[in-house]
Amino acid sequence: MPAAVVLLSGGLDSVTVLAVAAAKGFDTYAMSFAYGQRHAVELECAARQAARFGAKAHEVVDLSHLGRLVAPATALVGDSALDVPKGQDVASAGIPTTYVPARNTLFLSYGLAWAEVLEARHLFIGVNALDYSGYPDCRPAFIESFASTANLATRIGVEAGEPLRIETPLQALRKHEIIALGLEHGVDYADTVSCYDPAQDASGAPIACGSCDSCQLRRRGFELAAVPDPTRYA
Amino acid sequence: MPAAVVLLSGGLDSVTVLAVAAAKGFDTYAMSFAYGQRHAVELECAARQAARFGAKAHEVVDLSHLGRLVAPATALVGDSALDVPKGQDVASAGIPTTYVPARNTLFLSYGLAWAEVLEARHLFIGVNALDYSGYPDCRPAFIESFASTANLATRIGVEAGEPLRIETPLQALRKHEIIALGLEHGVDYADTVSCYDPAQDASGAPIACGSCDSCQLRRRGFELAAVPDPTRYA
Repeated sequence: MPAAVVLLSGGLDSVTVLAVAAAKGFDTYAMSFAYGQRHAVELECAARQAARFGAKAHEVVDLSHLGRLVAPATALVGDSALDVPKGQDVASAGIPTTYVPARNTLFLSYGLAWAEVLEARHLFIGVNALDYSGYPDCRPAFIESFASTANLATRIGVEAGEPLRIETPLQALRKHEIIALGLEHGVDYADTVSCYDPAQDASGAPIACGSCDSCQLRRRGFELAAVPDPTRYA
Repeated sequence: MPAAVVLLSGGLDSVTVLAVAAAKGFDTYAMSFAYGQRHAVELECAARQAARFGAKAHEVVDLSHLGRLVAPATALVGDSALDVPKGQDVASAGIPTTYVPARNTLFLSYGLAWAEVLEARHLFIGVNALDYSGYPDCRPAFIESFASTANLATRIGVEAGEPLRIETPLQALRKHEIIALGLEHGVDYADTVSCYDPAQDASGAPIACGSCDSCQLRRRGFELAAVPDPTRYA
């Protein structure tokens, strides 16, 4: 089976991508990042989902330094003095404060390093442009540009052979379509975390806030998909 | 003063770049990476050089995980079973085993994150294509592509204003020209490490092997520059 690196946060989108990659017959290599995100509990979901979908390996990369470095500029990490916005209109213009500087560039670059070691030609990421256009590093133009850069950066770009592809199976899908796709492939969304600022119960299980941008998009997605939302909200 | 992030390994090239950036009047922010390289002693040079050239800050990023991940594919990290080639013709064709998968892409991405936090529009890297063409991620085409990607990836690419520039002041220079440039700007090359596989004396000072590709290029550079080579060779 051909190998594929799958960037796996443990959220709804990336777990769907893992399920899709596995269903396509790839040997999957899952990669997660611990960067001091407030929702680090998602990494536990990532580990279980990697096992569930038969990933050949699961790397959790310690980027805690990144979290400290970008804390002044993003609300998404625990070290930040900024609060995660709650109850705002998610369609509002501009880049939200939950944007993390250069995050997807860095994650894709790390995935690229692993792909080169594995001689994998497929690197999956769960970006989708339609549901949330506020993050510049989720745009198709960014992904296409990164793919060009990646092929110039590496052995692949010098030696003959198949180029590396950045695979974005969710790019054109809306959240309810992503959910429908994942359910087709057996995703258990109860074991995914989307909330940017979850609490945890006594057992450590996440309790979503229900009002951050990501919770709003997730909740609306389940409504539009017309399936029960397994998320535990505060 | 405008801010600039400078990728600083502690080697001959990157220290020259730091000196050039400082001389141009930038407020410099130096960034080094600990990725399990055999020549980690270079990081001590980096710290001293950052202080010497008045860097506003010096970040040493722990990427030890990267070193373990790429060990099967590069001789440059201590965890690798591959040996650093010694005494070979450095002009020989192909990508050498000291190539580290996706290294410059990852380093530039990390520097990009910091640049975005600092609102810096200049990111310096000491690549040079002439002396060593074996590394794909030192090519001008790669650097140009990364710059395009960086501007699509970030706030810079969405909001109006000056784009981020990847600054490569050494791109067109040969090693002896780099040395001459650095000497003009007061670089103390005795406190830089180029060797891929240095030993250390009892005090911890590095002793260069003298025969790896990097030592050969450095030694020849000092000869052609017609200045004394301060390197301590084995």
